[in-house]
Amino acid sequence: MNYKMVFKTVGRLLWAEAAFLCLPLFVSLYYKENLFLVYLIVIGLLLGVGALMNIPKPTKRTVYAREGFVIVSLSWILMSLFGALPFWFSGEIPSFIDAMFEVVSGFTTTGATILPNVEVISKSLLFWRAFTHWLGGMGIIVFVLAFLPQKDMQSMHIMRAEVPGPSVGKLVSKATVTARILYIMYGVLTVAEIVSLLCCKLPLFDSVTTAFATAGTGGFSIKNASIAAYNSLSVEIIVAVFMLLFGINFNLYYLMIVKQFKRAFKSEELWTYVGIVAVSTIAITLNIMPLVGSLGDSLRQAGFQVASIITTTGFGTVDLGAWPTFSQFIIVLLMFCGACTGSTGGGLKVGRIMILVKSVSRELRRAINPRSVKCIKLDGSVIDKEIISTTSIYFTVYMLLIAISTILISLDNVDMTSAVTASISCINNIGPGLSNSGMISHFADFSVLSKLIMTADMLIGRLEIFPMIILFLPSTWKKSA
Amino acid sequence: MNYKMVFKTVGRLLWAEAAFLCLPLFVSLYYKENLFLVYLIVIGLLLGVGALMNIPKPTKRTVYAREGFVIVSLSWILMSLFGALPFWFSGEIPSFIDAMFEVVSGFTTTGATILPNVEVISKSLLFWRAFTHWLGGMGIIVFVLAFLPQKDMQSMHIMRAEVPGPSVGKLVSKATVTARILYIMYGVLTVAEIVSLLCCKLPLFDSVTTAFATAGTGGFSIKNASIAAYNSLSVEIIVAVFMLLFGINFNLYYLMIVKQFKRAFKSEELWTYVGIVAVSTIAITLNIMPLVGSLGDSLRQAGFQVASIITTTGFGTVDLGAWPTFSQFIIVLLMFCGACTGSTGGGLKVGRIMILVKSVSRELRRAINPRSVKCIKLDGSVIDKEIISTTSIYFTVYMLLIAISTILISLDNVDMTSAVTASISCINNIGPGLSNSGMISHFADFSVLSKLIMTADMLIGRLEIFPMIILFLPSTWKKSA
Repeated sequence: MNYKMVFKTVGRLLWAEAAFLCLPLFVSLYYKENLFLVYLIVIGLLLGVGALMNIPKPTKRTVYAREGFVIVSLSWILMSLFGALPFWFSGEIPSFIDAMFEVVSGFTTTGATILPNVEVISKSLLFWRAFTHWLGGMGIIVFVLAFLPQKDMQSMHIMRAEVPGPSVGKLVSKATVTARILYIMYGVLTVAEIVSLLCCKLPLFDSVTTAFATAGTGGFSIKNASIAAYNSLSVEIIVAVFMLLFGINFNLYYLMIVKQFKRAFKSEELWTYVGIVAVSTIAITLNIMPLVGSLGDSLRQAGFQVASIITTTGFGTVDLGAWPTFSQFIIVLLMFCGACTGSTGGGLKVGRIMILVKSVSRELRRAINPRSVKCIKLDGSVIDKEIISTTSIYFTVYMLLIAISTILISLDNVDMTSAVTASISCINNIGPGLSNSGMISHFADFSVLSKLIMTADMLIGRLEIFPMIILFLPSTWKKSA
Repeated sequence: MNYKMVFKTVGRLLWAEAAFLCLPLFVSLYYKENLFLVYLIVIGLLLGVGALMNIPKPTKRTVYAREGFVIVSLSWILMSLFGALPFWFSGEIPSFIDAMFEVVSGFTTTGATILPNVEVISKSLLFWRAFTHWLGGMGIIVFVLAFLPQKDMQSMHIMRAEVPGPSVGKLVSKATVTARILYIMYGVLTVAEIVSLLCCKLPLFDSVTTAFATAGTGGFSIKNASIAAYNSLSVEIIVAVFMLLFGINFNLYYLMIVKQFKRAFKSEELWTYVGIVAVSTIAITLNIMPLVGSLGDSLRQAGFQVASIITTTGFGTVDLGAWPTFSQFIIVLLMFCGACTGSTGGGLKVGRIMILVKSVSRELRRAINPRSVKCIKLDGSVIDKEIISTTSIYFTVYMLLIAISTILISLDNVDMTSAVTASISCINNIGPGLSNSGMISHFADFSVLSKLIMTADMLIGRLEIFPMIILFLPSTWKKSA
């Protein structure tokens, strides 16, 4: 383990967070809030700790996979610890555990909140909350890679550990250029959503925070009633469409920019994603129609919620707890499913599920005819055996984590549905659960232990499990090996 | 596909079922019930259909893996269809769907019942119900292999498709001899339980049916209140101990018979199984103590239920729905876990879970140090890569099945916990679920669709998924390939 290089890199990332915190600082100045000193202290702390971590000079500058995992998980934990301070210092979230939960929920784009009344929080803190979604969606470190001069960061290993999905498709040969292209596309889409929302006569502040929360597929709202507060069909349609857009693999947008439309539209994962959205929306619409009344309203509710859950955003317009069990269970399955690989969404990802289903069908064919050795193809090319095996193992450890986390949360003696969906929701970075931890409700009433477990779940889920576990394995920290 | 050989073998298995039905026939004569004709008609039908299937003379006598799967799944379906007839013809279960559910629940050793009041059913039918458990536990076809002259059955492929667990350890080189040894050990243990129960002053009929249901890890009781009806600590202890004994890999008993004690007691799976039972019992005991009152009673309830669920038997002494969520969720995890490979229990099996956990830890080690290629060992010997990959895929298809079955059952609009645990319970051949399909309750109120789904779940689960799916794949039935 190259300790010095790990410290140096993490230290610089803390400096980057100091820079990010200038934005809410400006917002607080603009709205004449009394939080100037709070941000200044946190920025000072970040600069100081970052400087301390930069004191030991690394002799070797190499960063391998192991260092990549450690850098990413360590910096996510530290950035969350510091990112929680403004909430805590301001006194607007009196418990540090709660503040940490809130900011981790932000960075990991989960969107679960411990705030029973979000509308009393200062605007600059609401902005910071939404901004953590935006940064966390595409990756905090990817942002740094893209826009800060990092001549000595061995970027690919770090990027690979942070970007969601089974594989990071390098758009171009250089990692920093790839990161920049990703962020530019991300920025353009975000601006497009802000403008669209402004056209619906939403205030600028609401448009920006909602677009940030949509872009990162986060789900924090600045209203207690989430998107339902705006009571506007056009807002719901815009948010739903953008949620679905941010749930698509960004490589496809890049392909469209370089005019490879054919390749982009041949993506099997894209069409599976579209198919799942369509089928789920239709099934739920038909199932809730007797309850809701009109076809139009049912479609509106079903469509918005399907988009919100499959992209792991978690914005709400209705109380899912009131839906029939069939619809609720489709929602639970969509929670597992998640969006496309290489999007800002969480969950297992459509691509992984396709690999899993295809490996099952291959196994069946082999059982009938043991001599047939057939390979699995995706988008016409053969998938490496290693990826198939890693995907199966990923699914196993993912289910194990949900089991362990549910069992610990169930010590709170909430009902079974609450405990299970709270842990599914946190690991998949969705936000709301069902029942007690429902769409309209919040996570304030869970015990400290449960909140810590869920905070860990969100981080583990966002970084796709392995980096976080590796950070805590003793063998990672051995000098040799 | 060697059609003629498949028909011939399945036909002979129907003859065997005709022989099995003579037992309840004798019971009905002994108790002077009016069911003589019912059994006689069913026996006649079985002999007739069996004879029809034996008309085409096979030219080739070879049976490959594919034929093995088809023979096993087809004969399980047909034997269930015919096995349901006595319940239906007698009028004691008026609906054929219900009768089918009940007998499939018997053969698959699930123990879920659609009978709201089991105590009004004729004794001979109760005997047949318990006897299906006993046959299904070790395998109906294994029984035929063991005791009927089958000079031309290519036994191993068939046995492999029916015996639960990732691999059939051949005790001795010949499959028929292995089958015979298995059944003799099974019979001896069953008799031991009958004698033990008789010592507790249980009537002979109760002792035999309870022992059959324990041996197959089935769970049908002849009392509405299940084992709680006897209100006897010693009965509970005997049943709990025997459930745990039948949950152990029978290969270990064989090793003990041939005096290889060291090898038997070195089994990693055995100790993991013991460890899971011990830890779960302690955790539940502590969790339910405030509710139950005394330590003794809590231990008694926890110990019995843990044994009942992990072995997938499903006998009940208390209403699990009244337990705290933490204990309920441990029960749900034990439902997934199941007993040892090569036992009569269902579920994923402890051995499979060990392989899954070990493959996760190997993956983690490889992520830290990509050059380290380490293999997975169980009981000191390396596990084949194929088995690891098949186990992961098995887990995936197993979770997919639970999802699909739950979504269909949830159309009944029972609550989420009921829908989920009913489908987990049926696929793992346990019996009771939680909530609506709870320990004390029965499955009578589910819709016809749900009952059909659950009937399929039980069969798919008992035969460990692949044989049943393969039966319905079109490519299985192609002449060539």
